[in-house]
Amino acid sequence: MSTAARTPQQDRSRATRRRLLEAAVECLAELGWNGSTVAVVAERAGVTRGAAQHHFPTREDLFTAAVEHVSAERLAAVRVDADQLPPPGPARTEAVVELIVRLYTGPLFRAALHLWVAAATEPALAERIVALEDRVGRESHRAALEFLGVDEGADGVRESVQATLDLARGLGLANLLTDDAVRRAGVVRQWSRMLQSALDGQAR
Amino acid sequence: MSTAARTPQQDRSRATRRRLLEAAVECLAELGWNGSTVAVVAERAGVTRGAAQHHFPTREDLFTAAVEHVSAERLAAVRVDADQLPPPGPARTEAVVELIVRLYTGPLFRAALHLWVAAATEPALAERIVALEDRVGRESHRAALEFLGVDEGADGVRESVQATLDLARGLGLANLLTDDAVRRAGVVRQWSRMLQSALDGQAR
Repeated sequence: MSTAARTPQQDRSRATRRRLLEAAVECLAELGWNGSTVAVVAERAGVTRGAAQHHFPTREDLFTAAVEHVSAERLAAVRVDADQLPPPGPARTEAVVELIVRLYTGPLFRAALHLWVAAATEPALAERIVALEDRVGRESHRAALEFLGVDEGADGVRESVQATLDLARGLGLANLLTDDAVRRAGVVRQWSRMLQSALDGQAR
Repeated sequence: MSTAARTPQQDRSRATRRRLLEAAVECLAELGWNGSTVAVVAERAGVTRGAAQHHFPTREDLFTAAVEHVSAERLAAVRVDADQLPPPGPARTEAVVELIVRLYTGPLFRAALHLWVAAATEPALAERIVALEDRVGRESHRAALEFLGVDEGADGVRESVQATLDLARGLGLANLLTDDAVRRAGVVRQWSRMLQSALDGQAR
């Protein structure tokens, strides 16, 4: 549907939905799963609780959709930044690792982590989060391959890229309670060298 | 204090304390922070709630001590296993990475993760968990250096070992909601090759 074809009411509905999704991720990141009720999110988004429930019938619907929406937005923003990456070589590899690690060390990762850990003890949430993480994980993996400009068919490349995403998750966790930026910078630099060597075929 | 010098009452008290600590980690891993009350842990340990509160005045005391105690026990067990490691070289490096990753993908990590994430929104917990993670992190780092038999003074070695621990945390997170063993085996194999190259001086 093109912008021109939408009615003002549809535009308002879309804007409300978007405000709810963004507020939901902010609440999760700041207040955790326990503190993030639909009422709290509706208030932050400036909409009534009834309007929130019209868009998202359950709490699980709201937060799963929120993490998926914000992940897609962040990845789209990263794709724009990726146009400015240096040409292939060590500088590009380090810049790509930094881009990926930045994705996993901000409020979005913090929100996803709260949802993920809540899902470990809430079966109603677990099934949806597993499916969500699978989709987001695939998208991140595809983007990383693209940014690095490498061929997944080469021996060890797929696992090297997966290790990069696992490392980014670990660094995200290490940044949850304290500002880990200084230590992380050293790890990212060294990891980038190791990844470059692996992509060059020296560690496959 | 030697075993011979302890009275039967002191022995009983130590045994009760240990049962509480082990039950606390089991509860956290299975039920998460919300489900893990002192009463639930006392019941699982087969002690009265009063006895539990005698040993650990607050819920925060109990769970922080529990993760610290079980971490120390697991690391001691890993040290025993480390005696069976192959001589220095690629096989040893892979075996060490496997040992470390195993530490971060079992119930202890699951318990620690619940505590860690709860601490993000509970200031009373956060200060203690930051200190705890600092101690456990240092111990794990020291053990990894020892098992690998490498010198932290060499360029990039410290960061390579830190990256291994960060990767292990990321793999632990990826194992929270689904059994990630098959994918993880490939990542561990590739990471071990990359780490070996770095320790050999090819990626510093």
